[in-house]
Amino acid sequence: MEKKQQTFSKSLFAAFYQLTMAQAYWQNNQTGESTFSLFIRRFPASRGYMIFAGLEDILDHLSTFQFNADDIDYLRSLNHFENDFLDYLSDLKFTGQVRAMKEGTVFFPNEPVIEITAPLIEAQLIENYLLNRVNLETVLATKAARAIYAAKGHTISEFGSRRSHGIDSADALVRIGKIVGIESTGNIHGAAKYTQKISGTMAHSFITSFNSEVEAFRAFANSFPDGSTFLVDTFDTEQGTKNAIKVAHEMSENGHQLNAIRLDSGDFGTLSKKVRKMLDADGLTQVKIIVSGDIDEDMISALLESGAPIDSFGIGTKTATSSDAPAIDCVYKLVEYDNTPVMKLSKGKETLAGKKQVFRFKTDNNVYEKDTLALHNEDDKRYSTAHPLLGEVMANGVLKRPHPSLDNLHNHFLKEFASIHEQYKLLDRPKNYPVEQSQALIKLQEETLTKIESIETT
Amino acid sequence: MEKKQQTFSKSLFAAFYQLTMAQAYWQNNQTGESTFSLFIRRFPASRGYMIFAGLEDILDHLSTFQFNADDIDYLRSLNHFENDFLDYLSDLKFTGQVRAMKEGTVFFPNEPVIEITAPLIEAQLIENYLLNRVNLETVLATKAARAIYAAKGHTISEFGSRRSHGIDSADALVRIGKIVGIESTGNIHGAAKYTQKISGTMAHSFITSFNSEVEAFRAFANSFPDGSTFLVDTFDTEQGTKNAIKVAHEMSENGHQLNAIRLDSGDFGTLSKKVRKMLDADGLTQVKIIVSGDIDEDMISALLESGAPIDSFGIGTKTATSSDAPAIDCVYKLVEYDNTPVMKLSKGKETLAGKKQVFRFKTDNNVYEKDTLALHNEDDKRYSTAHPLLGEVMANGVLKRPHPSLDNLHNHFLKEFASIHEQYKLLDRPKNYPVEQSQALIKLQEETLTKIESIETT
Repeated sequence: MEKKQQTFSKSLFAAFYQLTMAQAYWQNNQTGESTFSLFIRRFPASRGYMIFAGLEDILDHLSTFQFNADDIDYLRSLNHFENDFLDYLSDLKFTGQVRAMKEGTVFFPNEPVIEITAPLIEAQLIENYLLNRVNLETVLATKAARAIYAAKGHTISEFGSRRSHGIDSADALVRIGKIVGIESTGNIHGAAKYTQKISGTMAHSFITSFNSEVEAFRAFANSFPDGSTFLVDTFDTEQGTKNAIKVAHEMSENGHQLNAIRLDSGDFGTLSKKVRKMLDADGLTQVKIIVSGDIDEDMISALLESGAPIDSFGIGTKTATSSDAPAIDCVYKLVEYDNTPVMKLSKGKETLAGKKQVFRFKTDNNVYEKDTLALHNEDDKRYSTAHPLLGEVMANGVLKRPHPSLDNLHNHFLKEFASIHEQYKLLDRPKNYPVEQSQALIKLQEETLTKIESIETT
Repeated sequence: MEKKQQTFSKSLFAAFYQLTMAQAYWQNNQTGESTFSLFIRRFPASRGYMIFAGLEDILDHLSTFQFNADDIDYLRSLNHFENDFLDYLSDLKFTGQVRAMKEGTVFFPNEPVIEITAPLIEAQLIENYLLNRVNLETVLATKAARAIYAAKGHTISEFGSRRSHGIDSADALVRIGKIVGIESTGNIHGAAKYTQKISGTMAHSFITSFNSEVEAFRAFANSFPDGSTFLVDTFDTEQGTKNAIKVAHEMSENGHQLNAIRLDSGDFGTLSKKVRKMLDADGLTQVKIIVSGDIDEDMISALLESGAPIDSFGIGTKTATSSDAPAIDCVYKLVEYDNTPVMKLSKGKETLAGKKQVFRFKTDNNVYEKDTLALHNEDDKRYSTAHPLLGEVMANGVLKRPHPSLDNLHNHFLKEFASIHEQYKLLDRPKNYPVEQSQALIKLQEETLTKIESIETT
């Protein structure tokens, strides 16, 4: 019974050192304006691009950021913070600026997807929440985009909610599914929240609770005469298909049609060909074949290459957890404080000083050619043909525009995805997309480095 | 703006097919008593045991399971369910029995960790929630237990919340951290919820926001004179250590002590030895060394084997996402309906029919020797020396006992972990722990199979 009955706010979802630093900043009058960049340092396994997501939730969080009474009481109970500082915290709101890429945008390492400019303490206290949300939605969106790429237009449904890391994560999967074009989800809670289409058929327990498979199929068809998909592998896929065909003909006699059969185990390549033949031989050419069970982008790709006559793929666990790359190396780093550019030099984790902009160049065919990482205020003709990716979405803590709809973000994603050259989208060993640094950015790094070395060398 | 303002309950966190099946059950009067087993089919990579967790949250969910008005309105809007069925759903509560292992218990494939006995529709509708929660907490608990094993008594703190899949998942990590013996967390929200110790030091942004590293250390020491850990790798670890030593001596002059220094990049083996020498040479033998950054059980093990003088490990991303095994193959299968044992035979996914008990045998030295998977009602003298792992925790939808405290579960885990032989705890290629099936269980499978074959063969 150690779980407290208090209700803590999401504003308390901070790392302890953020609050510890905040008190030290406050006591040392280190409260000037700061800019933080949120970016990934490198790609996770096999990725040649990432799809940015998570902004809407973050903006809602920043709009309502405030510690509640339970939060402050808890912090006081730690005997670690000064009362004056806690009084200051209880009045704190986020008053800063957010510049960000649009969700659904393709991005690459070292490119800021979000830049926060705000008084240092405000900007520091939101770090944990921002990293958590960008990591979650971006990891899922990128993994799901890979499945969309592999499916080459075949529909994909998502049934991963049972293995997502919590309900938040399962619902986020539904949201990014809408952005990248997943057709439907099995997660009702997420579908209700994000107005996604739902789909689902039956579990093996449905079959086994009846006296026989045929009886189970009949009962289901009786309940859903025009929306039935039969799961045929409970006992034996071939025999199950025969039973499905039998009941499908009974349905036809009553003026109804079986939608599809679902394979959930075994060798999907061989089975789908066998089952397609059986269905077609019985005149059931309109009955679709759906597969589920450990399906990911690699299996979709292999099955389609082998010519498996599969109409629709059900993805699950591997997509829901982004199993081959469950996290990205995303970080939130101070790049400017009190109008002075700053950087860290930690081995393998160096950061680029300065508030930035990302310019994207296209070929005449609307294919992305290269990006240039520049300072945010560079006035350079070279960028007149490029598109700046970071736009102001919040100023003085207030949203500059309503959130784009998920349909709008889906259309944006489609354009983005069509604009990346095939070689960067390969599932395995994709090419490196060129991200250059502007002359002004390079010069700023050299100046900042020189300055640090003059101070930090004894 | 597609996000609805309604508040949906967690009861709606069901897979669509569960509700679809529920209506078909209801229409076909298939509403008898059922038993479902929740178990894993096989180990994920490199695992020789799993640590069960997630029960408390599940029992709280079952105690309060009910669809709210928004849930029912949403389901009605789908035009898929009959009004009478929705009326039935809106009154539905969970009235069943839960038999479960205690959280913190070691378990193996095919052993039910939870068995639900309830009217079929109730038992079916809770499937998604149960699988999601057991997967989340069990995956995290097992991953964290591996780090505890590798650390051989060195303390471990957890700083993974920025890369957890959502806040729920980050907080669950704090909870299971208390069960397996993680010393502290950086996640304040989770610490507040589960009364865990918190820890944290400073980020690189703290250092870079000051004019110099020394100045930053002084400011921090000024704010936390008796609780400071200095992060020394912002620019150069050796120079950073020199700066830390300088400020540590200033602190000593004022009657205070530096706690520790933290390494966050580079080769921790080499650096920790160098830094320990520097600290000791300056008489700072009490200052501890903490490492963080991509630490997991394998790295802890390798560092300690190499004799690295590290006092404490900060684990993060890899533990927070269980990166090498982010999901387990846990399933929830009907094993008995209306007093009749049932099974599925899907290739590679066969289930064992019948309501069960797991008996665990120990040697005289209190070491676990083998488990026997038996029928729940076997009355056999052979089990008199064994311990039954499944106990009734809920009857008629009502909790049989208060939740054990996290301290109680931690003590239980310690006993469990001490009782598994070393060979099953190895980080790589652990041995297979013996799980046998009782004669009665084997006989039931044969009978059930014969019965299915007589029905399902045309």
